[in-house]
Amino acid sequence: MEKVRKLERIVALTKILSQRPHRLFPFSYFSELFDVAKSTLSEDMLVVRQVLQKYGLGTLETIAGASGGVRYLPSPSPSAIHELLTELAARLSAPERIIPGGYLYMSDILYTAHWMEKVGELFMVQFRHLAPDYIMTIETKGIPLAFMTARAFDVPLITVRHGSRVTEGSAVSINYVSGSSRRIQTMSLPRRALPSKARILIIDDFMKAGGTALGMVELAHEFGAEVVGTGVLVATAEPEKKLIAGYQPLLILHSVDEQVKKVDIRPALMGG
Amino acid sequence: MEKVRKLERIVALTKILSQRPHRLFPFSYFSELFDVAKSTLSEDMLVVRQVLQKYGLGTLETIAGASGGVRYLPSPSPSAIHELLTELAARLSAPERIIPGGYLYMSDILYTAHWMEKVGELFMVQFRHLAPDYIMTIETKGIPLAFMTARAFDVPLITVRHGSRVTEGSAVSINYVSGSSRRIQTMSLPRRALPSKARILIIDDFMKAGGTALGMVELAHEFGAEVVGTGVLVATAEPEKKLIAGYQPLLILHSVDEQVKKVDIRPALMGG
Repeated sequence: MEKVRKLERIVALTKILSQRPHRLFPFSYFSELFDVAKSTLSEDMLVVRQVLQKYGLGTLETIAGASGGVRYLPSPSPSAIHELLTELAARLSAPERIIPGGYLYMSDILYTAHWMEKVGELFMVQFRHLAPDYIMTIETKGIPLAFMTARAFDVPLITVRHGSRVTEGSAVSINYVSGSSRRIQTMSLPRRALPSKARILIIDDFMKAGGTALGMVELAHEFGAEVVGTGVLVATAEPEKKLIAGYQPLLILHSVDEQVKKVDIRPALMGG
Repeated sequence: MEKVRKLERIVALTKILSQRPHRLFPFSYFSELFDVAKSTLSEDMLVVRQVLQKYGLGTLETIAGASGGVRYLPSPSPSAIHELLTELAARLSAPERIIPGGYLYMSDILYTAHWMEKVGELFMVQFRHLAPDYIMTIETKGIPLAFMTARAFDVPLITVRHGSRVTEGSAVSINYVSGSSRRIQTMSLPRRALPSKARILIIDDFMKAGGTALGMVELAHEFGAEVVGTGVLVATAEPEKKLIAGYQPLLILHSVDEQVKKVDIRPALMGG
């Protein structure tokens, strides 16, 4: 019977751990679930980790001690990162994406789960050392991406809104100058959305001048929270100097030429 | 070596299939990946399916024939559905969620990935027979839920916006009367977001009178698309008669009493 039991544990371990990335499961959770000793569990986890790594499917991290346990972590290889960003750049370069005014239509990719899952996992890997406890974004198009980043970190998402909503209670609002429209706009966050001293990672789909990201940094400060990093899927090459420093783009949009129907967008991260 | 190889295949099968729910993988994909005969693969898939089912982690569906293959499907048991909805109702009943005006603060739950993943999988199970090829929602708070439903179906999400955006190109707009505000509002969708004849499942976080959902149905008609179903996380008990028929709520909000600080919200689906 031991052989069947081992297969059973291996399947359940793989599924339970990988469906909740970054979540630390105490060893006791699995030793009780399977009714086995921790030494047996260690052997099982070694098998799962080796196979995940061999097939480029992620890895397991084990943490020793009383508050320890095991967690699943996505761990895309440099070549997988390169492949992902190259493919996204190729898709976004399609001339039919050009919208009058020099904009690029990205919504189909931003609203497709398997792309955003991979991008969210990549942001997790990039920013893991900063240990954020909230992901912050602003409505609307960046929400799926930021949500999948929050999923990869196993932390909640906070969504800043334009204006404030009666259905979310009292809110803190600030004014900011959007880099693209150059108009003064308002963004707000419900008071109850964020505790003070939170460590925040800002994730958004697009950055031009950085005015919106700067607004989110200021809004976070109003809550006594700290922005520890900023990640964007696409940043424009111009203006070179953004309103915030230290942001991490995955793709750089160099130009959108409406005349000759050409988009120049390239990976910013070479994955190695 | 056979024993190690089998364990290896089992881990990789579990991870690859379950990370992309509803996606049909041809048998040839795995027989090439592992360099094994399809008969061996069938035995492996049987093991994975049995274990997933035993632990309530989902199931595998195999489809025979040239265009066949294998897919992972979440399959929450009646008791798991009951437990999920009972816990959500309990959390949403907390008196501190009451917002002046009789609203209920739900954003923390709507922006937490593991809750929305479970709710999205539940909508997939509920609406699977309708075979939608797009999920539609309206900004903002329903996006994560609708996105996780789209993920569970392996189909794209379409997000309707208030007003129209210059960055998304030409759009179709309609006016509608929001049931809660009773004001005439505008919603729009970019022309390129949706092909004609698409089968659409509407997913939203909240329904009161159903005016917003009705607006989405009308907007879909403008594209020559068909709305095959509507799912909402929370519907209010009053008004009993909504502007659209045949919607499926998961929870019913019976009352929010600001005076005595009491919220009455209950599962609409008993899970069996």
